[in-house]
Amino acid sequence: MVQQSHFSSKIHRSWTTRLDSKKSRMAGISSYMNGKFIPTDKIVDPLQTLILPGDKVMLESVQKQADFLSRSLAQVDPKIVHDLHIIVMAIGRPDHLSIFEDGIAKKIDFSFAGPQSHRVSQLIEKGVLEVGAIHTYVELSARLFCDLTPNVCLVCAEYADRDGNLYTGANTEDTPSIIEATAFSNGIVVVQVNEIVDKLPRVDIPGGWVDVIVEADRPFAMEPIQTRDPKDITELQILTAMMIIKGIYAPHQVTKLNHGVGFSTAAVELLLPTYGAQLGLKGKICKNWILNPQPTLIPAIESGWVESVHSFGNEDGMQEYIKARPDIFFTGADGSLRSNRVFCQLAGHYAIDCFSGSTLQIDAEGNTSTVTIGRIAGFGGAPNLGSDAHGRRHSSPAWLSTITSDGPNVHGRKLVLQVVETFKAGGVPTFVPQLDAVQVGKDAGLPVAPIMVYGEDCTHIATEQGIAYLYKSDSLEERKEIVAAVAGVTSVGLSVSRNRVNELRRLGKVAYPEDLGVNRGEAKRSLLSARSMKDLVAWSDGLYQPPARFRNW
Amino acid sequence: MVQQSHFSSKIHRSWTTRLDSKKSRMAGISSYMNGKFIPTDKIVDPLQTLILPGDKVMLESVQKQADFLSRSLAQVDPKIVHDLHIIVMAIGRPDHLSIFEDGIAKKIDFSFAGPQSHRVSQLIEKGVLEVGAIHTYVELSARLFCDLTPNVCLVCAEYADRDGNLYTGANTEDTPSIIEATAFSNGIVVVQVNEIVDKLPRVDIPGGWVDVIVEADRPFAMEPIQTRDPKDITELQILTAMMIIKGIYAPHQVTKLNHGVGFSTAAVELLLPTYGAQLGLKGKICKNWILNPQPTLIPAIESGWVESVHSFGNEDGMQEYIKARPDIFFTGADGSLRSNRVFCQLAGHYAIDCFSGSTLQIDAEGNTSTVTIGRIAGFGGAPNLGSDAHGRRHSSPAWLSTITSDGPNVHGRKLVLQVVETFKAGGVPTFVPQLDAVQVGKDAGLPVAPIMVYGEDCTHIATEQGIAYLYKSDSLEERKEIVAAVAGVTSVGLSVSRNRVNELRRLGKVAYPEDLGVNRGEAKRSLLSARSMKDLVAWSDGLYQPPARFRNW
Repeated sequence: MVQQSHFSSKIHRSWTTRLDSKKSRMAGISSYMNGKFIPTDKIVDPLQTLILPGDKVMLESVQKQADFLSRSLAQVDPKIVHDLHIIVMAIGRPDHLSIFEDGIAKKIDFSFAGPQSHRVSQLIEKGVLEVGAIHTYVELSARLFCDLTPNVCLVCAEYADRDGNLYTGANTEDTPSIIEATAFSNGIVVVQVNEIVDKLPRVDIPGGWVDVIVEADRPFAMEPIQTRDPKDITELQILTAMMIIKGIYAPHQVTKLNHGVGFSTAAVELLLPTYGAQLGLKGKICKNWILNPQPTLIPAIESGWVESVHSFGNEDGMQEYIKARPDIFFTGADGSLRSNRVFCQLAGHYAIDCFSGSTLQIDAEGNTSTVTIGRIAGFGGAPNLGSDAHGRRHSSPAWLSTITSDGPNVHGRKLVLQVVETFKAGGVPTFVPQLDAVQVGKDAGLPVAPIMVYGEDCTHIATEQGIAYLYKSDSLEERKEIVAAVAGVTSVGLSVSRNRVNELRRLGKVAYPEDLGVNRGEAKRSLLSARSMKDLVAWSDGLYQPPARFRNW
Repeated sequence: MVQQSHFSSKIHRSWTTRLDSKKSRMAGISSYMNGKFIPTDKIVDPLQTLILPGDKVMLESVQKQADFLSRSLAQVDPKIVHDLHIIVMAIGRPDHLSIFEDGIAKKIDFSFAGPQSHRVSQLIEKGVLEVGAIHTYVELSARLFCDLTPNVCLVCAEYADRDGNLYTGANTEDTPSIIEATAFSNGIVVVQVNEIVDKLPRVDIPGGWVDVIVEADRPFAMEPIQTRDPKDITELQILTAMMIIKGIYAPHQVTKLNHGVGFSTAAVELLLPTYGAQLGLKGKICKNWILNPQPTLIPAIESGWVESVHSFGNEDGMQEYIKARPDIFFTGADGSLRSNRVFCQLAGHYAIDCFSGSTLQIDAEGNTSTVTIGRIAGFGGAPNLGSDAHGRRHSSPAWLSTITSDGPNVHGRKLVLQVVETFKAGGVPTFVPQLDAVQVGKDAGLPVAPIMVYGEDCTHIATEQGIAYLYKSDSLEERKEIVAAVAGVTSVGLSVSRNRVNELRRLGKVAYPEDLGVNRGEAKRSLLSARSMKDLVAWSDGLYQPPARFRNW
């Protein structure tokens, strides 16, 4: 028998407070509802009933933004709805912040601030914005199932049918994970849709998971954030890309990878059908991609390099091309992309061999950050992709190739490559003795500095000067020398002697173009398989339709 | 214009081979189909048509097992279907291996072998089984979206409706992620259901994602693998649990956590309402759980310690209790659990502060493994839960409490605790100079030794002797001394001098019960809030209904 003294700690409470609250909130808006539907011009009042002060409210926003709902939230009466705890992947819109200035919201947990990063810094300084934490995307998704479960989520889809089933189509992104965390914790799921239709092209979210649907005043906002015009790729970037292919991807046999957004990695993609093919690497590297459908990948796909692409989100203009290439992309029965940020980040953490991305600053020890003075930008997915997965247990040639010691308990690691030029526009050095992030973190009262990729996780740095093989360093001191050896004439670069650099090159811990047999004279734009958006369209047989801003024809 | 020479690399191929193959396979079974349905006694022939030699075939199996489909697969003609590449989370059934002996399958990628681990070792040795790799669960899920995308998946659900929508109910587990990877890559989704019904309690998977449904000959197999009977908890385990609460959870302020399956962590759960309450820790530790609905958590829930539980899978007997406690568990509109292994593992990697689990061996450097001679068991979820998440960027008091140095770039880490007794049953030492895994890995031709938790990730070890604070070590040598200090009279334990141990205790790098103020005399079974299954039933107000094997009344 249980001792009576133990039983005395049993408490008496309702165990259905979230469910009861949901029922009462939903009852409060019944006069607005026709089935699950609320008229477009009536949404503000119901939001004031559905959302209670202090609630955790998740707003959907990365590429796809529930902008009608966030604009509507900005119109609620702060006397009725206040002190909200906002959870948002990307602070992408002015209204995401105006709700703080108006007293509707108080605290925020987020992953990326992008264009709003300057204002975020200012609002933190003013005490208007209380930051819970800055996350990597998938980490914020994870917390939805643990200690940041939303009371209400405001998300978006392309279509709903009359039963409330949703079609998210190519831009599925975070919608399934946000809704799952909310719906299965008796939270309230509010969805804006572009259109209510009789029959969906496919069902992405079952209607039973959805509480309220409203047709938006205009289609949800979208950003083609991954598109890079080949015309802007420089010859220095081409040189760096050649070194990446010959000095990293080939010797490490990188078959599964992610590329961040940037011109240098776009150059790598565009060099595969030319330079990569000359080196005889087709079928040996760059086969399985974790990547949004970036147009600069088209020539590599069309020349048979690519076996598969799984995507975080969609990229505008790629719809028809994707539909015609279902062997490569993950698509639904309707032919359009099924993206999914959580699964894609998961694959980017655990399945791939290599992450290659750019950054704004690198310090002497190889730590990197995109946070610079006055801007708290967040990192999106980079820390997840750009870190070694200590839980990984499967091997691949690339993963094993990083082992530099003997011993019974050795293991491989993910290749994490940071690609930069030694100086940014305006002659600002990329390599710095200490990251701005350290000061920014102190000023904003963050408990640790907002570092994007830690030096301990960074295996390679590529600059126009050469490749730094950081994973080969046998001490922190040597790691610093290896970083300096590719840092050009920055103060960090000047801290290592030419003799020492030559020794590191002999040891294979640093490689300059001539060490790799990369001919600087070959690094011409003519080596790119596509040099313009028009070239990409031609490669795609006219299926890729660039957004207007990328067209000059 | 694109240079003509570049365009010459454009290849001409079909880009719809997977879709075409799917259409042709589905057409081949049309005579068996009534809508999406195939009669129970006709499934073997269609499987022979749907599955082609060399296919990647995913079998669902952890707690919930698509056993009707795996038994049916074992009946296909190896002359027709052979050389399959099987992907399975857990090798849980004899038929998972007989298909290799019969020549139907050739290669396997898996995460856990459990009761089949001995036979797995034998089949590898005989060359019958070719192992792709041994994974952690979530890592294998990740590869489904990258380089291990199934051609066909064989999964299970409780019910299907006439439109093919699925109800997975409490045992959702891996079904959504397996189906998503297969359905959106033009693979074929085959589902066994316990029953076909007119109306589902809720829709877990939309019918549009499903190709073939068959009613199984009997309900899918289930294992209550997480249930531990309190009657089997020993006083040594209680002593260890007291040290974990007072020496780890309290000082580190562990609020978000996962417990592995084991009696020592069950003891921690059962001590919260008694010992934990005496220490005044209620509301301060152990609030948000990533855990299957383990019955030993009931007293902590009933006494108000627990705010939330998200689960990998279900646990038999807990259905009515879960339904009555929706504030705590993630449940659907029908009141039953919504588990989801991928999301739960994700939260276990990125959201929690602490993983506590047991193991079979620990080496002198703190590496651990459950692989022992003659058995390749795999690790399930442990490597993912039991590793530091280098991509994590949010702070918590627990995470920050592990920082032991100054400097601008420091960061916290996850607490990874391994709980063991210094000797196992039969006087076999748990602490060993070198893990058996090293030899097993060599014998099986694995590229690296199958280590479960690496010493570099393990922050604490708890034994009946005391707590080792490995994260405080300032060198590998010191880490070895700290491990030895809690290793009792094993050869590892005897390698450190008593003087050195006393110094480590003074430095706070090791703590014995008396250092923590834990009274050995208090470590009695009477301190457990429940000492039997009957006690757990009483705590649950009769809602918990233990499976027959756990009942003696």
